Amino acid sequence: MRPSTRPALVGVLAVALAFTAGVARAADPLPSWNDGPAKHAIVTFVAEVTKAGSPGFVPAPERIATFDNDGTLWAEQPLYFQLLFALDRVKALAPQHPKWKDQEPFASLLRGDVKGALAGGEKAIAEIVMVTHAGMTTAEFERVVKDWLATARHPKTGKPYTEMVYQPMLELLAYLRESGFKTFIVSGGGIEFMRPWTERVYGIPPEQVVGSSIKTKFEVRDGQPVLVRLPAIEFVDDKAGKPVGINSHIGRRPIAAFGNSDGDREMLEWTQAGGGARLMMLVHHDDAERENAYGPDSKIGTFSDALMAEAKQQGWIVISMKKDWKAVFPPNP
Amino acid sequence: MRPSTRPALVGVLAVALAFTAGVARAADPLPSWNDGPAKHAIVTFVAEVTKAGSPGFVPAPERIATFDNDGTLWAEQPLYFQLLFALDRVKALAPQHPKWKDQEPFASLLRGDVKGALAGGEKAIAEIVMVTHAGMTTAEFERVVKDWLATARHPKTGKPYTEMVYQPMLELLAYLRESGFKTFIVSGGGIEFMRPWTERVYGIPPEQVVGSSIKTKFEVRDGQPVLVRLPAIEFVDDKAGKPVGINSHIGRRPIAAFGNSDGDREMLEWTQAGGGARLMMLVHHDDAERENAYGPDSKIGTFSDALMAEAKQQGWIVISMKKDWKAVFPPNP
Repeated sequence: MRPSTRPALVGVLAVALAFTAGVARAADPLPSWNDGPAKHAIVTFVAEVTKAGSPGFVPAPERIATFDNDGTLWAEQPLYFQLLFALDRVKALAPQHPKWKDQEPFASLLRGDVKGALAGGEKAIAEIVMVTHAGMTTAEFERVVKDWLATARHPKTGKPYTEMVYQPMLELLAYLRESGFKTFIVSGGGIEFMRPWTERVYGIPPEQVVGSSIKTKFEVRDGQPVLVRLPAIEFVDDKAGKPVGINSHIGRRPIAAFGNSDGDREMLEWTQAGGGARLMMLVHHDDAERENAYGPDSKIGTFSDALMAEAKQQGWIVISMKKDWKAVFPPNP
Repeated sequence: MRPSTRPALVGVLAVALAFTAGVARAADPLPSWNDGPAKHAIVTFVAEVTKAGSPGFVPAPERIATFDNDGTLWAEQPLYFQLLFALDRVKALAPQHPKWKDQEPFASLLRGDVKGALAGGEKAIAEIVMVTHAGMTTAEFERVVKDWLATARHPKTGKPYTEMVYQPMLELLAYLRESGFKTFIVSGGGIEFMRPWTERVYGIPPEQVVGSSIKTKFEVRDGQPVLVRLPAIEFVDDKAGKPVGINSHIGRRPIAAFGNSDGDREMLEWTQAGGGARLMMLVHHDDAERENAYGPDSKIGTFSDALMAEAKQQGWIVISMKKDWKAVFPPNP
């Protein structure tokens, strides 16, 4: 082959590859999903709401899809990742707080006894969250979150937390957006803990993240306006708080909602109550081999028997991680 | 001309018209703005942030522009339109509240004495707002707002309130969006009072509206999930509340912000403090002939001398309605 023909050949090959990739995507927008009821429900729903003239057609601006984060888009074991962040921060901040050595829940934590520290229940967790999440500006907190994500590793897999995301859900997010949906996170997690990385990892920009929050206050410090994070809860975006958060931040009712635990129940009920074509799905962690199997008895991501019963009664689709997902996590980079 | 040539001719004409319109728009995206410092500042800013490689270039996802509503996008005299809505609602609800005849501020109001009713100051206004804005579901409130807007008329011009919007600002919103901006409302007005109509009137969807709010509560009524509006303030999106609302709902700092009164000061300060190319503008109501002239002494839309001094010192652009705007309101439909 003469060298001069190579660029042309490369061009032809590139077009051929692009075409093949295009066909593959058109043929299967969800390659990490096994053929089964969950995948079928998604594809059928999207076809229905996007086809002009169909009884279930929904204009693009009203195609709102909401996703829980912990346990739905990324993993949540052995503890919510934001709690692992807080524990790491306590250790990092300890030198500035010498009294913590004799003060619970910090003393246990600094001795490496996480279980002992969390034995104080919600009060202990609230204390840990406040000292690690408040008392700085929003810009400072964003920097702390980014630095932590850059270096912290999951205790079991050794991966960065932002790689502990579910590949089938990444495909679902992309598929919905290609179908004219706006995708939102609606999580019990901290809104400012998520925003620094959701655009990069999920393609969800900060203005489409709804979460729990602490109060902030506008101040001018040395002539510079800042927002200071205060040690007081502003909003808990969980359970009955989720429809409230959706209404406050989005102002429209979703037509599709995705969760994995009792905390998502009201979000799915609120979504379904809108009438018309609707899709409600719950990720069920039933895959001990590839991820985790936990359900009604887990304190993290409780999927109660009552939720399972409601799902069956209401026609919500329960996604079996084991059966419905071909892969759980993205391939190693 | 033979009939069969007509479609072709129509096609050619349509293309020619589209081309002309395209050229006209490209030549002047802001036809209702007079050539002057305000228009120049807008066009220069947009050119700078959108030109790849320019020192002020801003990637499209970060092109956030925030607009106050009352006095910036639509008029606010003789009273904030939402307050006129509340006064109308008191009259509509009076038959269900016979005691109001002897109870201030309602008694004065029902006698037609608005000034007397508002003499009770903030407490009276809060009472009027709560009885007219709370105690129903979010869906019911949306219906009430839409019905009012369909029938209510401005006391001076006789126009629907949604036609009391500023034509130059509509052009500015469209121009920014065509330039890759996301446009948001950040208003002291009620978030749920604005959302039912901002998409139709301004092209701003509900999820891009930030405003003041009352508390809501998720309930299941007769098996149907609803959000009930409670008589308690949740958030006041004014003054130092505006950067807080921006942070909560948008999660990014705007690069352009538009207001008209002391209530917008902190939003403009917060916008400017981000560094890089920034545009801060204030509409000055100095046009008694075509709209209104009011400033430091007006209780509605106060534009204090301190704000004017800060604008000059900080390089914020003051838009003179009289000098900078060729037209104030859209042409009659």
